Amino acid sequence: MDKSKKENALHIIKIGGNVIDNSENLHKFLKDFTALDGFKILVHGGGKVATQLSETLGIEAKMVDGRRITDIETLRIVTMVYGGLINKNIVAQLQKFGNNAIGLTGADGNFIRTKKRPVKTIDYGFVGDIDDKSVDAEGIKRLMEAGFTPVFCAVTHDGDGQLLNTNADTIASALAVSLAKLFDTTLIYCFEKQGVLKDINDETSLIKEIDPVYYEELKQQKIIHSGMLPKLDNAFTAINCGVSSVIIGHADKLGKLKHNSSFGTRLSKNA
Amino acid sequence: MDKSKKENALHIIKIGGNVIDNSENLHKFLKDFTALDGFKILVHGGGKVATQLSETLGIEAKMVDGRRITDIETLRIVTMVYGGLINKNIVAQLQKFGNNAIGLTGADGNFIRTKKRPVKTIDYGFVGDIDDKSVDAEGIKRLMEAGFTPVFCAVTHDGDGQLLNTNADTIASALAVSLAKLFDTTLIYCFEKQGVLKDINDETSLIKEIDPVYYEELKQQKIIHSGMLPKLDNAFTAINCGVSSVIIGHADKLGKLKHNSSFGTRLSKNA
Repeated sequence: MDKSKKENALHIIKIGGNVIDNSENLHKFLKDFTALDGFKILVHGGGKVATQLSETLGIEAKMVDGRRITDIETLRIVTMVYGGLINKNIVAQLQKFGNNAIGLTGADGNFIRTKKRPVKTIDYGFVGDIDDKSVDAEGIKRLMEAGFTPVFCAVTHDGDGQLLNTNADTIASALAVSLAKLFDTTLIYCFEKQGVLKDINDETSLIKEIDPVYYEELKQQKIIHSGMLPKLDNAFTAINCGVSSVIIGHADKLGKLKHNSSFGTRLSKNA
Repeated sequence: MDKSKKENALHIIKIGGNVIDNSENLHKFLKDFTALDGFKILVHGGGKVATQLSETLGIEAKMVDGRRITDIETLRIVTMVYGGLINKNIVAQLQKFGNNAIGLTGADGNFIRTKKRPVKTIDYGFVGDIDDKSVDAEGIKRLMEAGFTPVFCAVTHDGDGQLLNTNADTIASALAVSLAKLFDTTLIYCFEKQGVLKDINDETSLIKEIDPVYYEELKQQKIIHSGMLPKLDNAFTAINCGVSSVIIGHADKLGKLKHNSSFGTRLSKNA
């Protein structure tokens, strides 16, 4: 790694709906996020608000394999709630803490351009798939160097005027892989558990490190399943594509996750 | 005016709800906006969508003197619709035309910090008032120099975590006054009329130029009244505070308004 790159540390932190839904937890998390040194990017998911608003408006929320089916009405809700309500309230909170945040979809700055998922057995609707050309790392670098902290929601665009819904875990991973070419990048997935657990009901059963071989074992033993699979797939993509460090842990431990290996699950490449 | 300033032309364009509500008109307008030379900023108002969503959700839209009363539920709607749905769809359209837009509230980048309006005879709710320290012109300049076109909606913040609703005409004027210190600034208010009309029902009754003396006459004769009053007050504030040119005209004439004095109403200072 060349020296100039190493000097520029970048943290990319992803938070999920469970952190967003609790304003006290979110407040603490955003304070800890502000305290991180160097460049940083926040990626946030949805939360209950989108589902609640859909229900109030009589729009049925459809899910397949833990992924949201995004019809045109759901895309409107997602754009309003993720891109407007949640994103802008997070930005306002970060500003309160002195963190000069700018809230973004992938359309803003043309930072994340995706392709509408082709219809095969399932029509996912207005869902955008990321590829290795989706992220404009240089553009995001320019924004950060101008003094701003990017805060991304789970909305991207196709470059032809269409907004699309994209999984926030995938956005975080793709940002990390792309920006790892320019920065010494740490990717941290924060959620409501201490990390990857052997027993989902036992917070003390934390797995402190996972390499690809162990990951295969954990999958075969069904210890890791359902919603954790895409999260870990995204996390392994990152660690295998140049990201320096990938950690999965509890949102209320953000300040400790990077430097204290007692907290969270660390991913490693094959030895 | 010093030469370095004159070399940097800035256009600040404001569009209202009537342009936003018609997707064909909006499309044409955004194409013309993209074609403007030099630095540019778009400021957009609301439109029918916010009112429609409020109605669907059973939230009564309250107006006093053409101004929206913003209770906490209305603020949520405004943040979702203005900051999310409208703003991000405009950004996606601009990207389609090759204009590298970033959609913003005043919280983003801490660009527009306002004060919640004190309660006197009327409680306007979560409305933010702009003063002469609200706009961070240097920050907006940094964003534009990094290659991005700011697109502001009618949401600001108080710097203490609270989003606030602020009139889009006022935002456009305040941005123009503040940025006129750094750029040779033109402010254009675009709406659904050819400009300020002597007879609101006769599009050929365009008033081509208004100075403060004539403005007083027009007000006394009730030729200018209701919704046009705050717009023109904002426009005169701008022309009196260093903005080079202030024009009011039809959104579908954007390309002609600046250079062809047959179109739109021009404001001038006292002779």
